[in-house]
Amino acid sequence: MWVKKHLISMGDLSVNEITKILDTAKMFSVSDQSKIKTYDTLKGKTVVNLFYEASTRTRTSFEIAAKRLSADTVNFSAESSSVGKGETLLDTVRNIEAMYPSIIVVRHPLAGTPLLLSKRVRVNVVNAGDGPHEHPSQALLDMMMIRDVKKDFKDLEIAIIGDIAHSRVARSNIIGLKKMGANVRVSGPPTLVPKVIEKLGVKVEYDMNKVLKGCDVIMMLRLQLERQSQKLFPSKREYARFFGLNAERLKLAKPDAIIMHPGPMNRGVEISSEVADSSRSKILGQVSNGVAVRMAILHLLAGGGQLYENSH
Amino acid sequence: MWVKKHLISMGDLSVNEITKILDTAKMFSVSDQSKIKTYDTLKGKTVVNLFYEASTRTRTSFEIAAKRLSADTVNFSAESSSVGKGETLLDTVRNIEAMYPSIIVVRHPLAGTPLLLSKRVRVNVVNAGDGPHEHPSQALLDMMMIRDVKKDFKDLEIAIIGDIAHSRVARSNIIGLKKMGANVRVSGPPTLVPKVIEKLGVKVEYDMNKVLKGCDVIMMLRLQLERQSQKLFPSKREYARFFGLNAERLKLAKPDAIIMHPGPMNRGVEISSEVADSSRSKILGQVSNGVAVRMAILHLLAGGGQLYENSH
Amino acid sequence: MWVKKHLISMGDLSVNEITKILDTAKMFSVSDQSKIKTYDTLKGKTVVNLFYEASTRTRTSFEIAAKRLSADTVNFSAESSSVGKGETLLDTVRNIEAMYPSIIVVRHPLAGTPLLLSKRVRVNVVNAGDGPHEHPSQALLDMMMIRDVKKDFKDLEIAIIGDIAHSRVARSNIIGLKKMGANVRVSGPPTLVPKVIEKLGVKVEYDMNKVLKGCDVIMMLRLQLERQSQKLFPSKREYARFFGLNAERLKLAKPDAIIMHPGPMNRGVEISSEVADSSRSKILGQVSNGVAVRMAILHLLAGGGQLYENSH
Repeated sequence: MWVKKHLISMGDLSVNEITKILDTAKMFSVSDQSKIKTYDTLKGKTVVNLFYEASTRTRTSFEIAAKRLSADTVNFSAESSSVGKGETLLDTVRNIEAMYPSIIVVRHPLAGTPLLLSKRVRVNVVNAGDGPHEHPSQALLDMMMIRDVKKDFKDLEIAIIGDIAHSRVARSNIIGLKKMGANVRVSGPPTLVPKVIEKLGVKVEYDMNKVLKGCDVIMMLRLQLERQSQKLFPSKREYARFFGLNAERLKLAKPDAIIMHPGPMNRGVEISSEVADSSRSKILGQVSNGVAVRMAILHLLAGGGQLYENSH
Repeated sequence: MWVKKHLISMGDLSVNEITKILDTAKMFSVSDQSKIKTYDTLKGKTVVNLFYEASTRTRTSFEIAAKRLSADTVNFSAESSSVGKGETLLDTVRNIEAMYPSIIVVRHPLAGTPLLLSKRVRVNVVNAGDGPHEHPSQALLDMMMIRDVKKDFKDLEIAIIGDIAHSRVARSNIIGLKKMGANVRVSGPPTLVPKVIEKLGVKVEYDMNKVLKGCDVIMMLRLQLERQSQKLFPSKREYARFFGLNAERLKLAKPDAIIMHPGPMNRGVEISSEVADSSRSKILGQVSNGVAVRMAILHLLAGGGQLYENSH
Repeated sequence: MWVKKHLISMGDLSVNEITKILDTAKMFSVSDQSKIKTYDTLKGKTVVNLFYEASTRTRTSFEIAAKRLSADTVNFSAESSSVGKGETLLDTVRNIEAMYPSIIVVRHPLAGTPLLLSKRVRVNVVNAGDGPHEHPSQALLDMMMIRDVKKDFKDLEIAIIGDIAHSRVARSNIIGLKKMGANVRVSGPPTLVPKVIEKLGVKVEYDMNKVLKGCDVIMMLRLQLERQSQKLFPSKREYARFFGLNAERLKLAKPDAIIMHPGPMNRGVEISSEVADSSRSKILGQVSNGVAVRMAILHLLAGGGQLYENSH
């Protein structure tokens, strides 16, 4: 039975809850467009995507997930919203709530916003990314991929490489993977990987080559190019040289290590095309898992009962 | 039986028609997300939202209303439309009409645009706000709230306070409320409340404290902050002092007076948070009514027959 | 039986395939909003509109077509997409593909983009306009109109007038119409109608009055006003004088010649209002045909089986 009303952070989720989401997502997972099924879970119900940051894949992934559960979906974006008219975020959300949607999916540049909202409204809230804080649905889809390939998290060696300091993807993955028994090591330039991150229970190692040794999973993060103007790294070229994953460097990992990236990729910067397009890359599989995991989240928050295939 | 083909202005509607819309809306009204029902009225039909002004709540309210009647909805916005390519409004609308939607919901900055369109096209037109002129669906949702609480409009004392001169919400409410037998008084700075407004049959009183005395309903209008640069009021602080509704001032109204606001609110300007969040505030109820009233409008324009709950 | 997986260009289509699309579109064609039917073809399937150029009518036409086949539709636009984040087009499309849509409808400013994509992805691709290259669904809806009125293409005399050099509409129509046995002549200022266009099998004639003589169909193209700043024509007024279609000039064509325009129109420039609004103008009929043709394209690409009316 599922009892949580909101999905705000990986920190909130128990091992059982993570397992329940991944098991449910597995039921929604297909290997081929022709096998897509739709379900009645959210028929006649409304899912609102409230995005205060531009997004393609996450918003679309939630939108497609909601539609495959037969929801009506409505998209709000910051630009067209009343935010520009001086309305408070809470008033905006309460207004949306007053139209009686079932679930609000919210992305916001400020850490903690979805948590705050979830305490002040009655509608179910899903965090689709809050500043540098958390991005739980991304971590869950990543974990789904790791479990698909590696079967179990126990004692896996997982390397996360890049801008750890600003990455909600890294943060949510670290929390979730640790909880499930994996070991996590991180690497990147010291300006983007503060030593204090070790408090999350990860090992910091600034030499990427050392980090790769013995890894089962390599999770590359997107380099936010705007960090360059903030002087947090000198050049794309130098970044690629020290922290880019290429075929040569990949040999340092275990022979069956898989490669992941949350997208969008900077090819030739944090990851070479040869690696990104190799059979060991699970990057597109992550995207497919994203829809399945988001269907699972919406299905569970909506009550999580018996699955009825759409009658058509 | 419903015969009107378009919903353009409160001035067009008879007492019977207003009552019919409010009665129909009542059938669509729910008190809780779990009680939402959807209907077959617009199944297989298309509703186009054609918005030449940015809007969140009105567009979304119409979109959700249409979807709960099983319509397919398509959103047009001015930015992405062919307007920027020099096409006339009428050509744009005739093009949309040629794709055979059932209803076009139009918001436009120029007063009279929906009326003009309704005379030149065959498709049903709903006015979702035309410049400073009318916003009939807003007036109807406000009137629904007043009727819900006060049971009857006859001899009610209703105060509308703020920028009466530029407010289509005020205008549509004044026309509708007068028609139903209520008395309307208005207040605000003389720059925003011209004496000539009395021609609509309302009483103008520049002292807000006097206006509140004996009121059953207080309708606060949003202060358009851009009016300040037009020198129509000196400062937000001074505006709040003379025309803001706060707990102290509220005591002047009847003890059971209700408070309304079309949103988005400027908290601390035209309304204090204490008042906005009090049990006498009906502001979120107005938003809920908005969906019900718009379902009623779309249902009636689409033929208004028997209601069939969506078969799922 | 339909075998093509993608719809990329008129050049790809055989006479039989063009006929099949037009025949299928005819089944979807209605003369009135009340006769609209919806079908189950794409029930539970997703159609993605991926538009890298602003568009109203084409995107909406595809969106409505998809919805009338019961598809879920998702709109991507260039602005909100990851393109701005440095992702390659191919990565964006592969990401969308990984969410398992059935069909991607793509518009892109670069000629050849849809073809390139179709070779690299497994999902069905529809070209909704690629730079100055092709716009096959527009040509097909134009051809549907011509066939509706003239019954057969054989030996028809068709004039296309305007900016032939930059027009994907002209290009796709020329290819399709020639294939079906029509004769095509083009006219416009020499800066916009290079003599080399005769290689497509059309006759170039710079005197519009001569071109009109004996025409069965007059297809006026939209004048892209930005061509003026490129010095490709001197003024709108002069353009209208030499290449605008007005009632006087129309007398030169056959008495039963029809007038077409892909929209949006510049009234008073390439076409006078008198002509655009006359009974011989098929401009709004083209828009209606657009939905029917796009339903046919989506239906055929999705397998093209038996048509099942939506069960409601």
